[in-house]
Amino acid sequence: MSDISPPRRRPGGRTARVGAAVHEAVRALIEERGRDGFTGRDVAERAGVNEATIYRRWGTLDNLVLDVAVAVAKLNQEQPLPDTGSLRRDLLLWAERMTTELGAPEGLSLLQAAIAARAHTATDSDRARQITDIAAARADLIQQMLDRARTRGEHTPTLSRVLDRLVAPLYLRAIFGYGRTELDLDDILDNTLAE
Amino acid sequence: MSDISPPRRRPGGRTARVGAAVHEAVRALIEERGRDGFTGRDVAERAGVNEATIYRRWGTLDNLVLDVAVAVAKLNQEQPLPDTGSLRRDLLLWAERMTTELGAPEGLSLLQAAIAARAHTATDSDRARQITDIAAARADLIQQMLDRARTRGEHTPTLSRVLDRLVAPLYLRAIFGYGRTELDLDDILDNTLAE
Repeated sequence: MSDISPPRRRPGGRTARVGAAVHEAVRALIEERGRDGFTGRDVAERAGVNEATIYRRWGTLDNLVLDVAVAVAKLNQEQPLPDTGSLRRDLLLWAERMTTELGAPEGLSLLQAAIAARAHTATDSDRARQITDIAAARADLIQQMLDRARTRGEHTPTLSRVLDRLVAPLYLRAIFGYGRTELDLDDILDNTLAE
Repeated sequence: MSDISPPRRRPGGRTARVGAAVHEAVRALIEERGRDGFTGRDVAERAGVNEATIYRRWGTLDNLVLDVAVAVAKLNQEQPLPDTGSLRRDLLLWAERMTTELGAPEGLSLLQAAIAARAHTATDSDRARQITDIAAARADLIQQMLDRARTRGEHTPTLSRVLDRLVAPLYLRAIFGYGRTELDLDDILDNTLAE
């Protein structure tokens, strides 16, 4: 039996095609119905694959959705960073982009997956690590904008300050909405860049 | 058939007892296994009720978990507010309490439920409203602390500023952890209370 090859995972192979079809199906279903509006069977039907294939490869629907959310986040992170020559303008463009991402159904799914993984840190370190990686990659992008500004001789806040003063309010408003208050991005940027 | 009474829902009646047993079971299961670690059948077994009863009353497991999370949040909100005579000290105590709540499995479940409801705003306005109510109740508590401080003659920030500068970083760190950065509550309070 030793001559049976392991499944090939080269790009363009069957495994890759199934992966792409399943990811596409999940993105479409999240868009149409939200994270809780579909089952593994729905994904299988939409992707034209066997439901058992999905569970064999991803284990659970939650893991599959996390996998898709991580892939979307990575794609988003591959967009070129704003580079306007002014840190304030860079951060403004970046904040607007993040607000759009967070408002999209997939952005909310990533957040849900992040929190689910957080609740499982003790039992499922692989999921927790994926989220830590995404958060770290996002922080690296901010650090790149800060480093460029410092090189230009601009006053630059610490990464921690940008997370607390700029990123955090965007997340809070994405989760809970705005209620009777408004997000004032100008005030938030003043506060982030205060010396 | 008109002499058949509707099911009674008085406190201490069967409906209330089932509700209490089911809530207690969900809280225990979240504590032990996290939000994704159990099914409706597990809840039914733990609570000693029929699984069909759960689905008849709550529709889905997600709705049940949201119901429990909202009840826990309401209980937490009934604790007396810090009232030390200093807004800074009040906000510090309140932030420490919130950090503990958010770090507990049920706090994370409420967040997950909030985001899930957010993704469903279009299709399920009842769930969305429950989350809006929780967020509004939380904002009211903060407003009470601010009003008391203003009455004492202290300089007081706006509610919106407290949400963005104090509450938001606590949530961000609860979701994504701390990475290479640290939460500096003193700095955050300085920033929240800056004139």
